[in-house]
Amino acid sequence: MELKNAKLVVIITEAAIESNIISLIKSMGIKGYTIYHGVTGEGDRGVRFGSGGLGGFGENVRIETVISSEEKAEKVMREVCEQYLNNYAGIVYATDVRVIRIEKFSKK
Amino acid sequence: MELKNAKLVVIITEAAIESNIISLIKSMGIKGYTIYHGVTGEGDRGVRFGSGGLGGFGENVRIETVISSEEKAEKVMREVCEQYLNNYAGIVYATDVRVIRIEKFSKK
Amino acid sequence: MELKNAKLVVIITEAAIESNIISLIKSMGIKGYTIYHGVTGEGDRGVRFGSGGLGGFGENVRIETVISSEEKAEKVMREVCEQYLNNYAGIVYATDVRVIRIEKFSKK
Repeated sequence: MELKNAKLVVIITEAAIESNIISLIKSMGIKGYTIYHGVTGEGDRGVRFGSGGLGGFGENVRIETVISSEEKAEKVMREVCEQYLNNYAGIVYATDVRVIRIEKFSKK
Repeated sequence: MELKNAKLVVIITEAAIESNIISLIKSMGIKGYTIYHGVTGEGDRGVRFGSGGLGGFGENVRIETVISSEEKAEKVMREVCEQYLNNYAGIVYATDVRVIRIEKFSKK
Repeated sequence: MELKNAKLVVIITEAAIESNIISLIKSMGIKGYTIYHGVTGEGDRGVRFGSGGLGGFGENVRIETVISSEEKAEKVMREVCEQYLNNYAGIVYATDVRVIRIEKFSKK
């Protein structure tokens, strides 16, 4: 059981494009990801609403994925940003992580 | 489209003071943040309850914000801690991130 | 009020074993942790469902804890992985954080 360096890529954006983002990252070979619902916030387009009481309007999601290759992580970040974040509110960031069993989550 | 170094500041505390924390960080010039609901946990004050079934009592929230300046990130951490975490359960931490479009989320 | 280096250990797995994981990390001396519900995702065992409408079947949770000792953080990661992640879907990763008031959350 080995610890390996990897990148955790985090995408926080409008829930309306959740399935688009998932399709995009899967098309880039990403096998594993985690989605957080019940997320709200504020960016430069004003208040971004979460799922608490607003029935589907303006919900946010956080999508995160662990990627073993730094180059691929940056490519995913740029693709998401270029394809969606000109028209939708959102932020994309990455952080260094140490991970066990990464072979399950990114075939690279 | 450029990747920049920044700090992700994470505040996990009682939902009762969510709006106080938001007001505080906004007063320090923070333009963008994300809030996670449905969070529970345990610290040194015993079990911190989440929103699952306890109707508003003792809920927790996670508030995170990306800040381009390390100095400002530390200032936010200290202010939150000094003003609220003597009287409320909580933890504040920061991690290094690489971010796209940070200009949207922290004018510094 | 001092900033200290620590490890944030994140465990994302099936909600069915939430209490098992909590018992395990507490038995290793972990005093503080945060749990996120409403989490879903996909790994190498196919779609992992979250709490949105599937009433208890296949829900995921994210459990995170700040640990001051790197050695202990790795021990927690390995124990969780060895004891549970052969039979349950999940991922375990750690990242470097700077934390205030860590004395509240990990007595080491």
